[in-house]
Amino acid sequence: MKTPETVRWAGDAIDVLDQTLLPGEVTYKRCDTVELAIEAIYLLRVRGAPAIGVMAGYTLALAMRIAAPADRDMFFDVLESEKARIDAARPTAHNLRWALERCAAAAHHADARSVDALHAVLLEEAHAIAAEDRELCAAIGRSGASLVPEGGGILTHCNAGALATAGIGTALAPLYTAWDAGKRFQVFADETRPLWQGARLTAWELAQAGIPVKVLCDGAAASLLASGQVQLVIVGADRVAANGDVANKIGTYGVALAARAHDIPFYVAAPSTTFDLGTPTGAGIPIEQRNSDEIVEPMGSPMAPQGVEGWNPAFDITPHGLIAGFVTESGILRPPFVESIRTAFGRHGRGA
Amino acid sequence: MKTPETVRWAGDAIDVLDQTLLPGEVTYKRCDTVELAIEAIYLLRVRGAPAIGVMAGYTLALAMRIAAPADRDMFFDVLESEKARIDAARPTAHNLRWALERCAAAAHHADARSVDALHAVLLEEAHAIAAEDRELCAAIGRSGASLVPEGGGILTHCNAGALATAGIGTALAPLYTAWDAGKRFQVFADETRPLWQGARLTAWELAQAGIPVKVLCDGAAASLLASGQVQLVIVGADRVAANGDVANKIGTYGVALAARAHDIPFYVAAPSTTFDLGTPTGAGIPIEQRNSDEIVEPMGSPMAPQGVEGWNPAFDITPHGLIAGFVTESGILRPPFVESIRTAFGRHGRGA
Repeated sequence: MKTPETVRWAGDAIDVLDQTLLPGEVTYKRCDTVELAIEAIYLLRVRGAPAIGVMAGYTLALAMRIAAPADRDMFFDVLESEKARIDAARPTAHNLRWALERCAAAAHHADARSVDALHAVLLEEAHAIAAEDRELCAAIGRSGASLVPEGGGILTHCNAGALATAGIGTALAPLYTAWDAGKRFQVFADETRPLWQGARLTAWELAQAGIPVKVLCDGAAASLLASGQVQLVIVGADRVAANGDVANKIGTYGVALAARAHDIPFYVAAPSTTFDLGTPTGAGIPIEQRNSDEIVEPMGSPMAPQGVEGWNPAFDITPHGLIAGFVTESGILRPPFVESIRTAFGRHGRGA
Repeated sequence: MKTPETVRWAGDAIDVLDQTLLPGEVTYKRCDTVELAIEAIYLLRVRGAPAIGVMAGYTLALAMRIAAPADRDMFFDVLESEKARIDAARPTAHNLRWALERCAAAAHHADARSVDALHAVLLEEAHAIAAEDRELCAAIGRSGASLVPEGGGILTHCNAGALATAGIGTALAPLYTAWDAGKRFQVFADETRPLWQGARLTAWELAQAGIPVKVLCDGAAASLLASGQVQLVIVGADRVAANGDVANKIGTYGVALAARAHDIPFYVAAPSTTFDLGTPTGAGIPIEQRNSDEIVEPMGSPMAPQGVEGWNPAFDITPHGLIAGFVTESGILRPPFVESIRTAFGRHGRGA
């Protein structure tokens, strides 16, 4: 399965597939300053928890090259401040902080003495995160392919596909894997207001791959699930708490409630890197509040009357009780999640 | 409470407040042909079950004047074909057919012998429907005002306000009535994709009245209900079946499920004219499927990739079990609805 490349290191710059322009334009935006790289994260040119992790690693490597600290001590001082600045770009995705911490730790633990060598370590770690993410996606695809109903329908929300990762995606990975193995099915993509990632991104990458996809308004999901056309709901995650509560794109929780009402299994696909064992429950996950204009002025066209504000949380929390299982690189985790998650990722996993 | 006039008879034409242009422009569209009047219904220049009923009455009166049948027999022949043509404009709203049948029956039962007198009977009946709708709205306001939580929050979906009726609305009528009586509260309006009636219409008319309103994406409703900011959900209806199942704007069902999950009462406000006692359950209500472009090309901007279709039912069915009560001109109907609806409207009600 050939899927698009979201982020690539371009030698002292990062090229980012600008997802705000999809599906109309396939353009890579060159980020050759830290400001441009952080903006790319904040404006969702690059988005999806795993891809944000990959971007974070490269952004840290880029930031350190631009800062050009004179010696080893200064290197580690600057590293802390650059980490904090990048970490502030978006608060909810666990992979952002996870990748920054991992790269910083690699520098701290490296034998490298020279600043040049430390730069090399950071970049190598960023490359490693990207390469491993590709592997994680492939493994998630293998873990979840058997869930895909032959001849059936699958509903997904937002985009947890190739465009959200360095590989074939998380929620869409089992679909790609099953399709490659010859299964045939129909995907339904919630359009995912306010930023239309379902219509713009999920529909685009599935259509590119030749997989049938229809788009629906988010409010139509409950009706679709009632209609009998869907046998599986699968979404990604921005962060999973230790008890299995999931932060994902706003609208996910309502889909999970509707899936439960119709006894349709609701799965969350995520690599170990998205599990945050340091956060006991969903109540501890910070939820990014975004600009009201994304709602009241979609695509820059005023939709609500002037002076009326939008309520615009970017994510919601789906309680673990609504989740049938987590599709991970270590197989499918089943309830009780507090145990299955700890067993899978608690000590050895990179999410710890 | 001063609210906008949606439909008015202009003497051989109907002036319709063009709701497709709100909130940017407040313009009345003159419909001086049957085609323009039907188009106004289909394109949702006029929408909302009660307002569609009012429009249907005037459209039938207009159609008969334009057709200008030569004698009484021809009058009733033409009446049948014009009724059928108007009835086909939108299949779900009960008030459309109800108003056409009522006007036709008035002509049949009138003492009028001349064609001119029959024209007068039709127009008088259309005026009566409009005047009665204003009364129904006011009565619904009185029935439901006590449900409005002082200092609390109310969620509504789509627009079941003044713009959906000839009066102060159905779902919004209790809010207007409570506000006039001095209660203060915060309204949350689902934006209501694909046509943004919540953002464009509900937010507009509430803001005009000085009532605080925030707009949210439809997918955010479950998260809002989880947040504790809302104590009442109230929506309108396009048709209510004899058992209390409700057809209303797509997205209503998901809101009802989320309200149930958080023990927040979910009410449906509708006049007797929206109750269809001839349809036993929601399964018998025809659901209008609208053009895919409303989803994949919102406001004419391609959002999904070319060739990808939208799944676009205009309405969904909320099962009666999720409904706390119906706010009607005859008070609040409580479960079991099959009995309370029959008692209220079964023999004497105009919905029979």
